[in-house]
Amino acid sequence: MNKPIAVLGGGNGGHQMALDLTLRGFDVNFCEHPDFKESFKNTLDTKIIENTGLIEDKARIHEVTLDFKKAMKDVDIIYLVIPAIAHESFFDNMIPHLRDGQLVVIWAGDAGALRLAKKLREEAPRKRINIAETNTLPYGTRLLGPSKVDLFVKAKKMFFSTFPAKETEEMLGMVKETFPVLESIDNILSVSFSNPNPTVHPPGTLLNIGRIQWSKGDFYLYREGITEAPSRIIRMVYDETLAVAKAFGFRMREFEDEQFRNPCSVMCVDFWAPFDKGGIVANMKGPSSIYNRYITEDLPYGLVHRSQLGDLVNVPTPIIDSIINLGSGICESNFWKGRTLMDLGLDGMNREQIMEYLQMGC
Amino acid sequence: MNKPIAVLGGGNGGHQMALDLTLRGFDVNFCEHPDFKESFKNTLDTKIIENTGLIEDKARIHEVTLDFKKAMKDVDIIYLVIPAIAHESFFDNMIPHLRDGQLVVIWAGDAGALRLAKKLREEAPRKRINIAETNTLPYGTRLLGPSKVDLFVKAKKMFFSTFPAKETEEMLGMVKETFPVLESIDNILSVSFSNPNPTVHPPGTLLNIGRIQWSKGDFYLYREGITEAPSRIIRMVYDETLAVAKAFGFRMREFEDEQFRNPCSVMCVDFWAPFDKGGIVANMKGPSSIYNRYITEDLPYGLVHRSQLGDLVNVPTPIIDSIINLGSGICESNFWKGRTLMDLGLDGMNREQIMEYLQMGC
Repeated sequence: MNKPIAVLGGGNGGHQMALDLTLRGFDVNFCEHPDFKESFKNTLDTKIIENTGLIEDKARIHEVTLDFKKAMKDVDIIYLVIPAIAHESFFDNMIPHLRDGQLVVIWAGDAGALRLAKKLREEAPRKRINIAETNTLPYGTRLLGPSKVDLFVKAKKMFFSTFPAKETEEMLGMVKETFPVLESIDNILSVSFSNPNPTVHPPGTLLNIGRIQWSKGDFYLYREGITEAPSRIIRMVYDETLAVAKAFGFRMREFEDEQFRNPCSVMCVDFWAPFDKGGIVANMKGPSSIYNRYITEDLPYGLVHRSQLGDLVNVPTPIIDSIINLGSGICESNFWKGRTLMDLGLDGMNREQIMEYLQMGC
Repeated sequence: MNKPIAVLGGGNGGHQMALDLTLRGFDVNFCEHPDFKESFKNTLDTKIIENTGLIEDKARIHEVTLDFKKAMKDVDIIYLVIPAIAHESFFDNMIPHLRDGQLVVIWAGDAGALRLAKKLREEAPRKRINIAETNTLPYGTRLLGPSKVDLFVKAKKMFFSTFPAKETEEMLGMVKETFPVLESIDNILSVSFSNPNPTVHPPGTLLNIGRIQWSKGDFYLYREGITEAPSRIIRMVYDETLAVAKAFGFRMREFEDEQFRNPCSVMCVDFWAPFDKGGIVANMKGPSSIYNRYITEDLPYGLVHRSQLGDLVNVPTPIIDSIINLGSGICESNFWKGRTLMDLGLDGMNREQIMEYLQMGC
């Protein structure tokens, strides 16, 4: 029997992953941050998670806990499945218990792997931890109630890289058994730039913000919101991102023209989602507020480093910058203080130094 | 009997002004550009205009014509009542027939007075024409059909300045009889910055653009669109505009905090519009397209020179710039090529030179 896999984060994605891996024969140590003890109580007490939607099944999870130490003790693989906004807090709880040789994979990392690497360098420089991230969660899923998830789409293509990138193939070998759809790509920035959320969600949401507020939650981004004009801006965010990647010389997920011209833009291209037929994605309600993660996570964590990297290689990103400015104004936050090159440990480097750092780790 | 007044431009505002002045005892020479002969045909043939709404009356206009020469011949005052996008074409038709001492007033000029001054300097440098503009039209009005206008709001406060500004008081004396609500203000930039349309319309429209397209025209900007978040961006456009004006040292229309927090933001503060009660403005339908004047006129003609003047005095205008970038992307036009400092004859000048030029005309 293999060692258990740690799944950290007890939200939608964490519940789904803990159950999915369990159903597929893996032992899972499922751990939530103590701050969220209340909402996690049922899962903690029963250890049972139930699935509806694409999977109709339930299972008993190997271990469910609020104790990071316990969850991370005898595992080789740690899957972190949380919003980027919670990275800092989870990293702080994880670092004391990390041990040499463990692999931490940050799902839909928004370059969080670079952030964790910087923190480890500063706070635990002697630990030899492998760090990786993916560009998206493997699921579109929502908690329907305590310990009950509804799975509506599954990824058919996901990108994976480690930091440093030279270890990607070796680490992919470790995790491929759990998620066979993972594909390696150049480096962590290749992965974060390939996350479709920052490309689609902030412009889609901002360009409907009056309607979102007026409708008081009766809003469907993919059915109503992503009409021709928002699609065009989404395409421009993507084009600017791709231009930055090309100027640096790393690959990212590329899309065809026509993939921007459907009701959910490129959002579901890599998912088993009949988005323009069955209405699975079209029927997803929301966002219902300006403080939704479509803005508060995807914008500061997803777009700021794209813009700053553009500056470094003289690639203008006026549309990305405009989205950041307007989102900041709307939420009365300075989102430019989101995930910056300084947070990622890339400040002060030039293009060549960044590419070398991503590849070699120093 | 006084000389007739020329009203140039046969759209909503022109029809309303020709009728209003006629009803108040002035002779009007009402002239449309020959390009719009078809839509102007009924008025041209009958010379009768009918009013509904705040005025229920009709009248026979002194002269109705497509001939600029005829309209402008024996008049002292020429009122230009057209979208900024048509300024260039009307100026070209007017310039040959302008004669010394005439006053041209551009209604809701968007700094068009400076544009006309530049063209006169280049094309007819010996003519001594007085040029003025106002910050808004005196009416909220729409053509309901041929020669029939519906007046729903009237201005209770409008700003007026001449170029050069030193002649403002003298010229205001000439026009005050026709529009007693006109007030003098520092200079042409004071007037263009006081136009509420560029402040309210582009952000209000862009931040609802998905809804505007999805609803296929069933959209009410003032009832549904200007919720809290768009209001906040409108306020930021205003704040940036005011900061530029203050850095230059000229006055502009200022608003109270609370005036931004109503369904139509500051749009109707200077109008006799019970905007938050009777729904007169709330029931205005539209805009229904991204190519509406709320974008295609107000954005390139109203916002670009605010941003460029900000650059000159080191006042950042990130929200205005973001609106210009996103509007350009949505309409696939480079709106930065709208009304620029070069078009206005202000390029190459510093702050002091601009202030001197606005005041003295050289």
